[in-house]
Amino acid sequence: MRFLPLLLALLASCASTSGLSLFGGEDPLASWADGEVKSTITSFVSEATDPESVHFVPAEERIAVFDNDGTLICEKPMYSQLAFMVDRAREYVAEDPTLREKEPYSSLMDGTFGSTKDIEAFIELAMETHTGMLDEEFVAVAEGWLASARHPDLQRPYTELVYAPMLELVAYLQDAGFQVWICTGGGVDFVRCYAKDVYGIGPENVIGSSGQKAFREIDGRGEFVRLRELVVPINDGPGKPVNINRHIGRTPILAVGNSDGDLEMLEYVAQRHARTLTLLLHHDDGEREFAYDDGIERALRAAGDGEIEVISMTRDFETIFQPAP
Amino acid sequence: MRFLPLLLALLASCASTSGLSLFGGEDPLASWADGEVKSTITSFVSEATDPESVHFVPAEERIAVFDNDGTLICEKPMYSQLAFMVDRAREYVAEDPTLREKEPYSSLMDGTFGSTKDIEAFIELAMETHTGMLDEEFVAVAEGWLASARHPDLQRPYTELVYAPMLELVAYLQDAGFQVWICTGGGVDFVRCYAKDVYGIGPENVIGSSGQKAFREIDGRGEFVRLRELVVPINDGPGKPVNINRHIGRTPILAVGNSDGDLEMLEYVAQRHARTLTLLLHHDDGEREFAYDDGIERALRAAGDGEIEVISMTRDFETIFQPAP
Repeated sequence: MRFLPLLLALLASCASTSGLSLFGGEDPLASWADGEVKSTITSFVSEATDPESVHFVPAEERIAVFDNDGTLICEKPMYSQLAFMVDRAREYVAEDPTLREKEPYSSLMDGTFGSTKDIEAFIELAMETHTGMLDEEFVAVAEGWLASARHPDLQRPYTELVYAPMLELVAYLQDAGFQVWICTGGGVDFVRCYAKDVYGIGPENVIGSSGQKAFREIDGRGEFVRLRELVVPINDGPGKPVNINRHIGRTPILAVGNSDGDLEMLEYVAQRHARTLTLLLHHDDGEREFAYDDGIERALRAAGDGEIEVISMTRDFETIFQPAP
Repeated sequence: MRFLPLLLALLASCASTSGLSLFGGEDPLASWADGEVKSTITSFVSEATDPESVHFVPAEERIAVFDNDGTLICEKPMYSQLAFMVDRAREYVAEDPTLREKEPYSSLMDGTFGSTKDIEAFIELAMETHTGMLDEEFVAVAEGWLASARHPDLQRPYTELVYAPMLELVAYLQDAGFQVWICTGGGVDFVRCYAKDVYGIGPENVIGSSGQKAFREIDGRGEFVRLRELVVPINDGPGKPVNINRHIGRTPILAVGNSDGDLEMLEYVAQRHARTLTLLLHHDDGEREFAYDDGIERALRAAGDGEIEVISMTRDFETIFQPAP
């Protein structure tokens, strides 16, 4: 390891140029408007990576968790996995019209399904569209859908409707030696289909909700069979800290969310270390995206009281989406 | 990123010196006896890391999984977590002698408990000793025990009784850009207590069995409460591929085990890629360690037929344990 000191010097120098712009390179957070939120982020990261700082954090403890739908990627009018489920369910009905008489298909086709707040109907729909097949079959179907589906208003593939500032933040943190994880209420296999290509986050760093699987020999080969049974807990609300503990085994120092379902994750991170950064994205830009407070009320109140910093999309996002490729 | 090409060259050069001994450095696998197993390992890793080789594997897919008890660390006469449970149960009985009348305590104190094959009694013992407390309390108790307990025959701390060749193999793979994971039937929180210090494997790379936890506010702080309910599946047998899929989301190219409980993991890895390395450690050295075929019969038969390579401790381990520090 005789090259190690030189290597470390080069790595540090690389991090400075690409990550922190000390030498006047491009701003790695160019899509963020200058202001308090942006400077809070850059100060936090500078201090966490500066061995001379009292707030220095060893690389192995630099862990960041991001919610997915609404935090990294557009979730209105319907988040991509729900749109996938609805499209799949319609295909099933087209193949077998008798399904129309059964839930969750009947209320879906009547247009009365609507809200994901009816958790039982939602789980029923998820089970119908995500189980009873092999893992590889599901992945092929999901990848096919992701490649062809278009957002109803914006007419772009869902996976292009990711927030440019968030993509920059993920890369900025990774350049600063952070392990960046996704912690999504959505299905882990669905998000893993695009997380590496779209966010640069590998499947091993995606925590999500999931159904149980069985590993069974089928035609002489071990296969994962997707079962009609949930892995407990669902990765939402207090389930997020539980699954972070299960998958990561240490408490992140940085968390980003956008809804009440992220509140326990944000509070968990804020409480556990002396210095943390917890961010709540507020969708308040009806002109450039969608404005909504529904499902973020508790989290906004908590942010008013405490350590959670609100990102205002209107004020803090210079750009919303990446330009089309 | 203008230093990147130089950096990559230096990294490659580091990997060659420390990992592959091309320049005559120290043998990174010095505790392995020269022979077929050792050369199979070094060829596999050389080819996987050589961009010119047809068997080259991109760094992100270089994933290795190791069983823990009996593979990385001595498991006889009793693996460390079982010894921990027995010691804890004896303490409970000393505090409350009426427990002596109840299972699993009565058969434990009678000496009739014995085998971990009585899975119900075993789970009962695990629940008694691992749940009904906060996560932080459990970790403190487990760390205290690990620091003070001694192996009954060898009179050394359990965490010193790790196999020197396996420690070298873990480091050798990490130097070659592999993500090295533990996939243990044991309890994930127990193994995480020492995995980083002893193996250099962080908690986020430890997959194991676990009880459910609830995240609850207690005295104004979010705490993990350890519940009397298992996370499904237990991480043994076909549960290992299921949990590898859940945690990693891609199939490893290398797996190491030592028992029938590892067979599905080994077969899963062997089947899924064109070129894999699957190793089964056979404890056949009664002089230097413990010789036993109990619980490895199916796996040995499978190794005879197929792609699984048997490591004979007698033949392939030049050294068994690290010297005492």
